[in-house]
Parts: sequence; structure tokens; C-alpha cells
Amino acid sequence: MLDLPFLPFCLLLGGLGFMCVAFVTSWCQYWRGGFALDGSTRTFNWHPVLMVTGLVVLYGAAALIYRLPPTWSGPKLPWKVLHGALALAAFILAVLGLAAVFRFHNENRTPNMYSLHSWLGLATVLLFSCQWLAGFSAFLLPWAPAWLRALYKPIHVFFGSTILLLSVASCVSGINEKLFFSLKNGTTDYKHLPPEAVYANTLGLLIVLFGVLVLAALARPSWKRPDADSPDSRQVPALPRGH
Amino acid sequence: MLDLPFLPFCLLLGGLGFMCVAFVTSWCQYWRGGFALDGSTRTFNWHPVLMVTGLVVLYGAAALIYRLPPTWSGPKLPWKVLHGALALAAFILAVLGLAAVFRFHNENRTPNMYSLHSWLGLATVLLFSCQWLAGFSAFLLPWAPAWLRALYKPIHVFFGSTILLLSVASCVSGINEKLFFSLKNGTTDYKHLPPEAVYANTLGLLIVLFGVLVLAALARPSWKRPDADSPDSRQVPALPRGH
Repeated sequence: MLDLPFLPFCLLLGGLGFMCVAFVTSWCQYWRGGFALDGSTRTFNWHPVLMVTGLVVLYGAAALIYRLPPTWSGPKLPWKVLHGALALAAFILAVLGLAAVFRFHNENRTPNMYSLHSWLGLATVLLFSCQWLAGFSAFLLPWAPAWLRALYKPIHVFFGSTILLLSVASCVSGINEKLFFSLKNGTTDYKHLPPEAVYANTLGLLIVLFGVLVLAALARPSWKRPDADSPDSRQVPALPRGH
Repeated sequence: MLDLPFLPFCLLLGGLGFMCVAFVTSWCQYWRGGFALDGSTRTFNWHPVLMVTGLVVLYGAAALIYRLPPTWSGPKLPWKVLHGALALAAFILAVLGLAAVFRFHNENRTPNMYSLHSWLGLATVLLFSCQWLAGFSAFLLPWAPAWLRALYKPIHVFFGSTILLLSVASCVSGINEKLFFSLKNGTTDYKHLPPEAVYANTLGLLIVLFGVLVLAALARPSWKRPDADSPDSRQVPALPRGH
């Protein structure tokens, strides 16, 4: 493959992640009435913003920490803590995003958890909670044995990519569903493709592009830590490279 | 990771793929009125069946051909032809699936290509057409130079997984959208979760599971051809393993 260095790619990805957050926020602010905590659709509006920011952008940033060359040498513990902290921040935003939609449904006597979007989205957040707890227990608690870390690491890596894939599919189905709900009765129908629909469809494609690029970066062999397949979780400082 | 052999995994995956096709067909047959070519919703019903069968199940089978140990030795050309033929069959089903939905929309004066589902789905099929043509040109035409094959191969592999991810996201958003359309006016609302909704939501989760398992199998290092990273496309018989 083309020999793209990681850091310029990271800048591109950061810009794309920023665009995803800016697009979802401005969609909810400009077309959907903004944000509030009153149980109205303005409470619902926190849902897409928090989910995209947490489960896609912050999650992607957390997943890519070990692709940064400075993480390849020196003590690993600070990077583990950063990885875990970013993932925890992503998880907290996702839980707040779920709280926003449940509050909105409950206030409006709409049932929860009936659509495929909601099933997939909740499965994603539940998997993420297991992933975070298992990762914390295996990699950050000092008494976890090395054999357990070595056994669990590829599973953690596999579910790391899987959860991002599920997040992207959840976002796409959620944006699609929201546009069918919102763009009718007293507004331009979704099927006549008003500017809001073009804008939110573009947001969906940006999220897909962000997710695909993060998954590609995670899979790219030359961007992995050189010792990525060895039991490397013993938190001892590595020798400087070249020794 | 657990040392699962490929062939039992393949059987499991084959069963899951069969279940996806059976679920989508029986959903359209039992709840949505069956199949016809008259431009009605019974023409539309071909759309989910052909997309799931082509872009997910057959596509997944085509993608996994080189993970079969018999492909690792002996002449490679027959396996390449099988890979290309399965992918072509998947592509033809996808095009027929698109034709079904365009025909239905045109007969009912519904605009085409407005939803995020349609944008993502069409992007997926267009990417797939480029992937097939580029793969055919680089790997099956005998005059393609070895350096071009070596350069293009990781790109082909990357887009191979990406297209499957896009297919899964398209299917999830499509099933979700279809249930919002169908389950209202004169039937039980989607939000009251009638049996059809549970059935089709389950179909969505089965498709996601199938896609994740295919992507995981593709990414698993020990299931790749031993020479997967070398320029291996010269169609000469490899030496038997152990020599």
C-alpha cells in the first residue's frame, strides 16, 4: 500500500472527526431547534451529538493511541491510562446520549427499544461496557497475570474494531430514521431532499468515512507497535530502540 | 486468540449465511406479500432478498475463498476464477436488487436516491463495481505486470473488507427504514414491536453478526495464505508445503 506516514494521516482523521462533531451539532442546532434538558425534542437532540462524539470520534481516538510512535518506547502505563481514560470519556458520553433518548421517549410516552437502530445501538453500548471493564481488569489492574493479558489481548483488539463497526452502523440507521421522523408534516418531505436531508446524509457519509479510516489504520501492519504480538503488558520500561 | 480451525468456522458461517437468506425471504414472503414483477411492493420485495443474498452472503463467501487451505498450494488460477465468479454473481444480484427498487419507485412516482440508506447503498454497489473491474484487470488478465499486482493487492484487500462493512450498514438502515414504512396505518405500529418487527430486527442482527465474523476471519493472521504478503500472483504452481 502507499507508504503514508501515520501523523499526517492522524491530522486528516482529526479534521474529519471534528467535521463529524461540527456537522451533527449544527444539524441539531440549526434545523432541529437546539438543545435543552426539558424532555422535548431539544433533549432528544443531545442523543445524536453525544453518540457521534462519544461512540465514533472519541472512541476512534482512544482506539488509535497505540499507533502513535511515542507509545512504542518508554513506560507503557501512561499510554494505557490515556487509552482507558479516552475510552471511559467516550463511554460516559454514550451513556448520557442513551439517557437523552430514554428521557425524551418517556416524557412523550413513546416506547423504548423497538427499532433495529435501538437494538443495535444498545448492543453496541453493552459490548463497549464489557470491553472497558475487561480491558481495565486485565491491563490496568497490576495483579492481572501476564498469561491472562496475552490471552485476552487479541480478543480486546478484535472487539475494539467490532464495536466501532457497530457504532457506525447504528449512527447510519439512526440518522436515516430521524430524517424520516422529522421531515414530514409541515416541512419538506425527506423524499424531496430538502437542504437538511442533504446535510444530514452527508454527515452519515462522513461518519462512515471516519469509521472506515480508523478501522484501516488499526488493521495496517506497519502502524502497529513492533512488539504488538508479544506479551508486552508488564509495564516495564522498554529499551530505547536501536539497543 | 482461541485456536479455532477454519473449516468448522466456515460451516458455522455457512449456516448463519443460510439463516440470513431464509429470514429475509420468509419476511418478504410471509409478512410483505411475496414476490412479483408487476412494479408493486411485491416487486420491491426482491430488493432486500437480492441485496442480502448478493452483497452480504455471496460477497462474504467470495471474500473468504483464499482462506480455504486447499487454495494455498497448487495452481492459483482456478481459485481466482472462482473468487471472481462468486463476486460477479454477488454483483449481478446487487444490480438486480437495485433494479427492483428503482422499478418500484418509478411505478409509484416515488423519488429515487434521497435517503441516507440509498446514498450509502448505491455508493457500496459503485465501489463494488470498481473493485470487481480493477480486480479482474489486475489479477485475471494475463498481461497485467507483477509489480502492478503487488501494488494493487493490499488496496483490493482493504476495499474488500470496506465494501462488506458498507453493505452491512446499508442493510441495517434499509431494514430499519422498511419497518417504519410498513408497520403503520392498518397494521400494528413498529413502536409496539409486533412479531414482524422482532423477526426483521433479528434478521438485522444476524446480518451484522455474519458481517463481523467474515471481517474477523479475513483479518485473522493464521488463516491467511502463508505467502499472502509476497507477490504471489504469477499463477505458477507452488511447491507442496514442507518442501
